Amino acid sequence: MKIILVGASGTIGQAIEAELRGRHEVVSVNRTSGDFRVDLSDPASIERLFSETGPFDALVCATGSVHFGPFEQFSEAQFEIGLRNKLMGQVNLVMMGLHSIADGGSFTLTSGLLNEAPIRHGVSAAMVNGGIEGFMRAAAISLPRGLRINVISPTIVEESLSAYGLFFPGIKPVPAREVALGYVRSIEGAQTGRIYRIGWSRDG
Amino acid sequence: MKIILVGASGTIGQAIEAELRGRHEVVSVNRTSGDFRVDLSDPASIERLFSETGPFDALVCATGSVHFGPFEQFSEAQFEIGLRNKLMGQVNLVMMGLHSIADGGSFTLTSGLLNEAPIRHGVSAAMVNGGIEGFMRAAAISLPRGLRINVISPTIVEESLSAYGLFFPGIKPVPAREVALGYVRSIEGAQTGRIYRIGWSRDG
Repeated sequence: MKIILVGASGTIGQAIEAELRGRHEVVSVNRTSGDFRVDLSDPASIERLFSETGPFDALVCATGSVHFGPFEQFSEAQFEIGLRNKLMGQVNLVMMGLHSIADGGSFTLTSGLLNEAPIRHGVSAAMVNGGIEGFMRAAAISLPRGLRINVISPTIVEESLSAYGLFFPGIKPVPAREVALGYVRSIEGAQTGRIYRIGWSRDG
Repeated sequence: MKIILVGASGTIGQAIEAELRGRHEVVSVNRTSGDFRVDLSDPASIERLFSETGPFDALVCATGSVHFGPFEQFSEAQFEIGLRNKLMGQVNLVMMGLHSIADGGSFTLTSGLLNEAPIRHGVSAAMVNGGIEGFMRAAAISLPRGLRINVISPTIVEESLSAYGLFFPGIKPVPAREVALGYVRSIEGAQTGRIYRIGWSRDG
C-alpha cells in the first residue's frame, strides 16, 4: 500500500513508520520536513498536499496542535488553535483526501484520552478529541467506495514523559511502539467506525 | 434560583420553562425574542448578554445551530456554522458566564445522540456534539467555587417529528417534557460532569 503518514517525524509517527516500513510505501509528511510538507491549519496547504502526493491507499494523521493552559484564563484565540489545527486539520485531510484515496482505502486519525479522562489545562484537547471522534463515527457510515475510517486514542507515551509527564499525574505511559500497533490495526484490519484506545480504558 | 434559559422559545426550551416556572425565576433568552437576545455565534453578543442579565444561579442552553447536508459535499463554511454556533456558542456561554454565576451554580449544555448514533447528513452535528461533551468533562474538573456543569443529550422529540423525522429512521422519539426533566435533574441535582442521555442509550 502507498500510505500517507502526516506527522511522520513525531514520536508516534516515527514508531508508526518503523512498523509499516518494509511491507508498505510510506510517504512522510510534516510541517517542515519529509517527502512533502503541510500546515494542518491551512486548508489550501492540505489541498496542495494531495496534488503533490497523487493517489494513495491509506492516510494516517499522527499529529495536531492544541493549546494547553489554565481553564479560567482560556481565551477564544487559544481554543481556536485546536479547532483549526488538530480538529479541522484532520477533518480536512479526510474531506480533501477523498478525491485521491483508492477504493477500499482507509483514514486513521488521532484523538487521545483527554475527552474521557480530562486533566487540568486540557479543556481544548478534550473538546477537540470529542469532536474528532464524533466526526469519525459519522464519516464511517457515510464514506463511499468501501472506504474506512478509525481513530486512535492513545494515552501518554513513555518517550514524551519528560516533556509532558507532569500534566498526567498517575497516568500509566506506554511505549510509542505499542501505540503504533493501533495504527497498523486500523490500516491493515477490516473494521471501520472504531476508536482504538491504546494504553487506557474508559473503565480505568 | 435565577435561571438564564438560552433557547427558551424552542420546542425543548418551552418544555424546560414549563418545568421550572413557579419555583424559579426564569430569564428567557433567544435570538430575536424573550427577556434578552443573543447571537450564539458572536462572542461580543454573549458578553453583552451577561452585562444585561446580571448575576444568576444557573444557565441552560437548549439551542444551537448546525448545518445538515450530504457528507461528500460538506464544505468548510458548512462545518463552520456548527463550530461557531452550537459548539463555541455554548463554550463561550460558560467561559463568559463564569464571571456572573453565583457560587455553587450550574451550567447545563445540550449535545444530542448523533456523535454516538450517527445519521446521514449529520457529520457536523456529530463533530459538534462530541466537542461539547469533551469540553464539559474537562470543565467539570476545572470549575471553581463549587460550580457544576452537565450536558443533556436528547434523542429527537415528538414535537419535531414532522420537521426532522425523515432524517432519523427508526429512532424512537420522546415528548419534549421528558427531555426537559434532564435539564431539571442537572439544575436541581448535585452531580457534575455527567451526560444525561434522554430517550436513547449507547447500547441501543
